[in-house]
Amino acid sequence: MNAFSFDCLHRDTKTNARTGVIHTPHGDIETPAFVPVGTQATVKSLDFDEISSSGTNLFFVNTYHMVLRPGTDVIQRFGGLHSFMHWDKPLITDSGGFQVFSLGAKRFARKNEKGEGEASLVRITDDGVTFKSHWDGVEYVFTPENSMEYQWILGADVHIAFDDCTPYPVTKKQAEKSMIRTHLWAKRSLDAHTKLSVTRNPYQALYGSIQGSVFEDLRKESAQCITKLPFDGFAIGGVAVGESKLEMEQVLSWVMPILPDNRPRHLLGVGEIDDIFTLISYGIDTFDCVQPTRLARMGIVFADKRELDITNKEFDGDTKPIDDACSCLTCKNYSRAYIHHLFRVRELLGYRLATIHNLSYIQNLIFKIRQAIRDGSFFKMKSEWLEQKNRV
Amino acid sequence: MNAFSFDCLHRDTKTNARTGVIHTPHGDIETPAFVPVGTQATVKSLDFDEISSSGTNLFFVNTYHMVLRPGTDVIQRFGGLHSFMHWDKPLITDSGGFQVFSLGAKRFARKNEKGEGEASLVRITDDGVTFKSHWDGVEYVFTPENSMEYQWILGADVHIAFDDCTPYPVTKKQAEKSMIRTHLWAKRSLDAHTKLSVTRNPYQALYGSIQGSVFEDLRKESAQCITKLPFDGFAIGGVAVGESKLEMEQVLSWVMPILPDNRPRHLLGVGEIDDIFTLISYGIDTFDCVQPTRLARMGIVFADKRELDITNKEFDGDTKPIDDACSCLTCKNYSRAYIHHLFRVRELLGYRLATIHNLSYIQNLIFKIRQAIRDGSFFKMKSEWLEQKNRV
Repeated sequence: MNAFSFDCLHRDTKTNARTGVIHTPHGDIETPAFVPVGTQATVKSLDFDEISSSGTNLFFVNTYHMVLRPGTDVIQRFGGLHSFMHWDKPLITDSGGFQVFSLGAKRFARKNEKGEGEASLVRITDDGVTFKSHWDGVEYVFTPENSMEYQWILGADVHIAFDDCTPYPVTKKQAEKSMIRTHLWAKRSLDAHTKLSVTRNPYQALYGSIQGSVFEDLRKESAQCITKLPFDGFAIGGVAVGESKLEMEQVLSWVMPILPDNRPRHLLGVGEIDDIFTLISYGIDTFDCVQPTRLARMGIVFADKRELDITNKEFDGDTKPIDDACSCLTCKNYSRAYIHHLFRVRELLGYRLATIHNLSYIQNLIFKIRQAIRDGSFFKMKSEWLEQKNRV
Repeated sequence: MNAFSFDCLHRDTKTNARTGVIHTPHGDIETPAFVPVGTQATVKSLDFDEISSSGTNLFFVNTYHMVLRPGTDVIQRFGGLHSFMHWDKPLITDSGGFQVFSLGAKRFARKNEKGEGEASLVRITDDGVTFKSHWDGVEYVFTPENSMEYQWILGADVHIAFDDCTPYPVTKKQAEKSMIRTHLWAKRSLDAHTKLSVTRNPYQALYGSIQGSVFEDLRKESAQCITKLPFDGFAIGGVAVGESKLEMEQVLSWVMPILPDNRPRHLLGVGEIDDIFTLISYGIDTFDCVQPTRLARMGIVFADKRELDITNKEFDGDTKPIDDACSCLTCKNYSRAYIHHLFRVRELLGYRLATIHNLSYIQNLIFKIRQAIRDGSFFKMKSEWLEQKNRV
């Protein structure tokens, strides 16, 4: 199987958008790529064939969730996530950091009767993070070392270094402390990863994670520090945690020029349909987001540059597909009225048909964006798309 | 398109089991056939391709549910259920009777603050039944005439005459009254159906429904009365309403000898895996049951003549498929451990994978039963199957 590598193939002249290919042991990923999220080892409601047919070549699984359920011992018995989930294309896992801080803290903070804050439930030291499972309250410890070990067991093609995910809003002092810890953990992650990679095959890549919240000097410092380390690629973390879209864009404007051109860049947790043109313009290669699949399960579906709430009464007799121009399994076979009916009577098939469509819609948009970058029309496409979307 | 007809092809020598083919405008149904239930115009969690791949050639949709949601006006816009659901094989609808008496009554009886019984919520006269929607309390009236009209709009290949579904337990006097009303409504159903059939194409078949509860003389009287009418086939109703398996078998022993040999016989609402050999032995051609699909959604899956609760801890690391001998999409691609995981974390894909398997398992069993009837080994197969099942 191929080792991990990245080739940049085309560059847009008016923006920093670029196309490329990430080569992995489980196949190639054409970039830019939208990465759907399969939180609990499943892209909710879809089977492998539907994920693949949507145009998806890479999806995300959360290490935190896998460690809690089913547990890495189960995944190890299968030789990794690919076999466990029946998915033979590339995969990416995160470090567990984001969920440790968000899920681990939130759920149990509510149950604390003594009025103690989150600090008593998620204990962060320079060594690592102690937290309680959001399922059953069992205590776990995540460290850079065991996060790497877990990810090697999960066996995704791309791993992410264990970081201290800075919350938002945050004081500059706190953000700095969190960033320093992230840098410390980045080195420890890399050391652990390097040791693990000696004994295991094929090679699984590791991306360094950049923090620094919404502070320009911290973000730049973090990007400079992390890119000095021999990571296979870089992830921008600590975004999509509550900051505004403008702040997210500012972070990209500070960080992206510092990232080395010859390695892939992943944006963590961002990729709402309105963000896509922006982040690709900054030179992001891959980005993951739950929005298209989450909206689908709420009955919000994408059609011709706008969103329809398929649960609205206006669709109850509508014989048209969700989107005339879409060739996904849902649009080829089912009407708006049928999907409206399924949502109205809360039938499982509805969530799935809407998910298939939204994912296919996004992947088709990204496919066209790659074409546009190649043929020099990306800026024009971006302008037209945003203009038309604003008009709707 | 073909008109409706039935050919009996093979007869078992030791039992009354038989194979045959029901010809319908949407294709042939090999019998005996297990008929899954797509209550609300969807076999819960499956798409048309999965229903078909399971070996299903006919499924059931409930008229009551369609009248309430989405409403027959919506279905009419699509020219019928086939187009609405994207299903091009045969379909059967019921009269609405069963649900009118069960759902219509139960849900609102609870809300009645005056201590009034069901009678105030479901009003039955010789004209028809007035009831309230279990969704929103809106009042509806079902009569033999509008049940036929509704079913012609739904456009299934087989309809069922509107009957008074006798509850259980019941006094003989009540059962007789209900049976007499069923006979009255059978004639009115047939008249309405005949009128409708003149103006509509292709012809849709109508089965008469036999009532009489667990009383031998009533069941025989009902079978004699209904079979005198020129129905295309016959359905045995008022079973699976709470009576014992022995009582159900007694009903078959009284009714089946009276049914004409040249027309198909459907058993309404019966087909748990333990019942299948029994009812086929009595000469039933088609039978519908929610059990395999309902059990699947609870995590109960069929394997090698027994049921596994896939949510049990013993399966959490089990790399085997649900059933080694099964070639369904689930067993070809997914392990017990993965399905266990999906159920444990309540992921939608779990319900679907289990449903695909249970339906395929049943359809494969019925396929083998048809073969066994053809080659004279049905009785042997039945004995072996039941013996082995009892041993497990």
